[in-house]
Amino acid sequence: MALPKALENYRQFYRKIKTFQDIGSVLHWDSEVMMPPSGREYRAKQIAEISGLTHEWTVGPEYKDLIEKAVQSLSEVPQTQKSLWEREFSVLEDERKKAEKLPAEFVTEFSETTNLAHAVWAEAKKNQKFSDFSEILEKIVGLSRKQADYIGYTTEPYDVLLDSYEKDAKASEIDQLFQDLKKELVPIVESAPYFESPFSSRTTSKEKQEKLCKRLPPLLGLSFDVSRLDVSHHPFSTSLGKADKRITTRYSESDPLSSIFGVLHETGHSLYEAGLSEIEDWPSPLTEFLSLGIHESQSRLWENQVGRSRSFWEFLYPILISDFGLTEKDISFTDLYKSINSTKKSKIRVEADQVTYNLHIILRFEIERDLINGKIKVKDLPELWNSKVKEYLGLKIENDSEGVLQDIHWSMGGFGYFPTYTLGNIFSSQFFAAFEKETSGYQNSFAKDGDFSSLLKWLRSKIHHQGKIQDVNSLVSSATGESPNAKYLIQYLKSKVSEVGTI
Amino acid sequence: MALPKALENYRQFYRKIKTFQDIGSVLHWDSEVMMPPSGREYRAKQIAEISGLTHEWTVGPEYKDLIEKAVQSLSEVPQTQKSLWEREFSVLEDERKKAEKLPAEFVTEFSETTNLAHAVWAEAKKNQKFSDFSEILEKIVGLSRKQADYIGYTTEPYDVLLDSYEKDAKASEIDQLFQDLKKELVPIVESAPYFESPFSSRTTSKEKQEKLCKRLPPLLGLSFDVSRLDVSHHPFSTSLGKADKRITTRYSESDPLSSIFGVLHETGHSLYEAGLSEIEDWPSPLTEFLSLGIHESQSRLWENQVGRSRSFWEFLYPILISDFGLTEKDISFTDLYKSINSTKKSKIRVEADQVTYNLHIILRFEIERDLINGKIKVKDLPELWNSKVKEYLGLKIENDSEGVLQDIHWSMGGFGYFPTYTLGNIFSSQFFAAFEKETSGYQNSFAKDGDFSSLLKWLRSKIHHQGKIQDVNSLVSSATGESPNAKYLIQYLKSKVSEVGTI
Repeated sequence: MALPKALENYRQFYRKIKTFQDIGSVLHWDSEVMMPPSGREYRAKQIAEISGLTHEWTVGPEYKDLIEKAVQSLSEVPQTQKSLWEREFSVLEDERKKAEKLPAEFVTEFSETTNLAHAVWAEAKKNQKFSDFSEILEKIVGLSRKQADYIGYTTEPYDVLLDSYEKDAKASEIDQLFQDLKKELVPIVESAPYFESPFSSRTTSKEKQEKLCKRLPPLLGLSFDVSRLDVSHHPFSTSLGKADKRITTRYSESDPLSSIFGVLHETGHSLYEAGLSEIEDWPSPLTEFLSLGIHESQSRLWENQVGRSRSFWEFLYPILISDFGLTEKDISFTDLYKSINSTKKSKIRVEADQVTYNLHIILRFEIERDLINGKIKVKDLPELWNSKVKEYLGLKIENDSEGVLQDIHWSMGGFGYFPTYTLGNIFSSQFFAAFEKETSGYQNSFAKDGDFSSLLKWLRSKIHHQGKIQDVNSLVSSATGESPNAKYLIQYLKSKVSEVGTI
Repeated sequence: MALPKALENYRQFYRKIKTFQDIGSVLHWDSEVMMPPSGREYRAKQIAEISGLTHEWTVGPEYKDLIEKAVQSLSEVPQTQKSLWEREFSVLEDERKKAEKLPAEFVTEFSETTNLAHAVWAEAKKNQKFSDFSEILEKIVGLSRKQADYIGYTTEPYDVLLDSYEKDAKASEIDQLFQDLKKELVPIVESAPYFESPFSSRTTSKEKQEKLCKRLPPLLGLSFDVSRLDVSHHPFSTSLGKADKRITTRYSESDPLSSIFGVLHETGHSLYEAGLSEIEDWPSPLTEFLSLGIHESQSRLWENQVGRSRSFWEFLYPILISDFGLTEKDISFTDLYKSINSTKKSKIRVEADQVTYNLHIILRFEIERDLINGKIKVKDLPELWNSKVKEYLGLKIENDSEGVLQDIHWSMGGFGYFPTYTLGNIFSSQFFAAFEKETSGYQNSFAKDGDFSSLLKWLRSKIHHQGKIQDVNSLVSSATGESPNAKYLIQYLKSKVSEVGTI
């Protein structure tokens, strides 16, 4: 049956905006991966023009009017389809109304301040001097609190910022999850064994790594008909269109595992995007990714639950040995397996292993929540940071660059972003445990045939094809039978640490 | 001194359109060079949205109004700057008014017909059957004549179509140039010697070719700070922004010269675009390329006048020998030099050498001019084509695919495009002759130091930095001291043919 005309008209406008957002993704991908260096300045202008246009369309009167008429026309829609449409407009209006509440001058000031802050942060980090960054950081904190005031909150300002990345999440609920996790993590970290990487003493050429890495996306279910693998400074994945989901990695000759895990991680993100694009209605507001935590759960699941599993490596180990021109005597299966599940306390988040990583996130969440809620001051950050690192990881921070200045996020005004990383780890463990319970013998297909389709099929139906139909809590509950909880992540890490400690 | 506000406002709108056109170039480059195969359908939509938007802005009331106000404000501009501004608005309004004269339904019908025709042409070519293509070609010819009627002409409808590619050119003037050329060319072709390529009996890997090819753009003055060299099905060059001019080539293991000449040709195009971007006012209507003939003159000049010269190869030959892992015994300088200046009559334009190429163009010009002017009919094309090939090249066409169906241009409605290729050859010879006359000892810099800066400097000042300030005839006259004429191309080809015939 044909849609009421008003729904078609609104959808057409929505799709125009989406097409231009995807054009922005092409410009961004090219700038990170292909563009000659001198192209930067003009490209920034091109990207700004596209963002300006899509923002203008999103908050403009034409779209508002089309949406109002579309909502009115819902009375003509068959009863069975009504709730889906209502969900669509609720998702859409929530975003649009938030945008409407921010005055244009505020948006400009925020963007100018954070643009400026990036350079200030980079310079301060280079000079290991937090005090050079504190003035502009105070301004960003002030603007972020102002943003929370414009949009409005019931419990605490931080919730508003969190909501931009993790829809409907509440800081108090995340705090509960994270405290449960922290209590268990600290002793796990103490007992977890460290193993030197067997690759650190040899050189593995970029070409050899690339050969192996190019096998991975198709192996997991991401065909190069709809994807590419390239090199960039920071690995990332991006959707440039319905059937165009690209990933990048980077190659270190002394650490080939980092390119492999980079590819597994980014492939997980792109498999989610590819699954969303399979939804019949694509593109619609309900075929966008649900939240950053759910997005991250898909990358972490393929990186950790699959990529650090025994069955995955039983399949990949002989291929790696052959692609790298080695023999089993050079690097044994056991040494390889132990090293990819090794734990070591470190000061830098992006170098952390799967166990300690979450402690890095929890300390950031605790600090930024208090900062935004006004319980602590910018000038107290270094001391607070260093004392938490001492408490959770037992390490002494020697200078601000390896401490509070290490991450770019706050300079971009990205308060509320950090917790989504650990939410991703929590969700991925819970999803994988549910998949395991439902799927007997999957290890055999992984290990013997390199066949991961049972897992992808499960994720497609339980997560990817669900789009934004439900909220995060409902999605996790309906996929796993339980509310989001840290139990499965704790179980996963405990059993992994104990396994590699005894082989 | 600050510009009158009305001029600034108009320029700002012009620059917005230009930025989006350049975004379209990014989308196009990516689709030809990088995009995974399944991305095609959605990318076509992205490109169509960008073209639609820039067209809408170009012919819309807002721009018209801004231009009118800007023109009125010219009274406030100092006398010394007035004529430049007048030229700018004359160039701009000429294009815009032409676009205004075409009804929207006509533009849609033209675009739908030619989109459809592409597939019909490809299928007919595959089946070697012109009659399968003739019906839709008749429709395209009809629409092209209608286009000429909408826009209006004084002498013949073909002039209108020609004008879209070669501003202000008249078919009667081109015919004069081409007849002069044809008269001389036919006997030159008869006397020109053919030499087998010394590479045809050996394999040259893509990697070796790429190594050599990557030296060429920087050698000629196109740095990889502002450029890239990649592979695509058809070589092309494109400007993606002020400092982002990319080129492509393709590699054949049995014909490495084709990748080298592809790179020289496309580098010539990109050097022109890079020179235009150096004009202080960039981007403005006067910093766009002047005409396709002038654009082609820049690619042909580096491909032929430089790339087939003795001094160029005196520099490059030892590098080629080394990059290809050969010795001078494998391929001698003389054999190489003769083969790159070899002549052979052939049926296919894109495989033709520098001498016979122009006969391919002249026959297309003669045919399409008569077709658009109504002197001949679509159904007569194959016979006419075959008889001209017999007359000019002495070859017998066996089927339509190697004859009238070989080129894509007519299926796209591109009548008036072909002559710009030979205009490029004519201009390039005339430019190079003028440069030679003014620059003593340039051969020594080319051959000994691989230093081509004297030529680039000449082109920058006489051609590139002139932008669209003058029309084509004035540009050629002021750069060379003579009106456009075929004398220098004939001289060049005669002396080349005689040189390689006697060594």
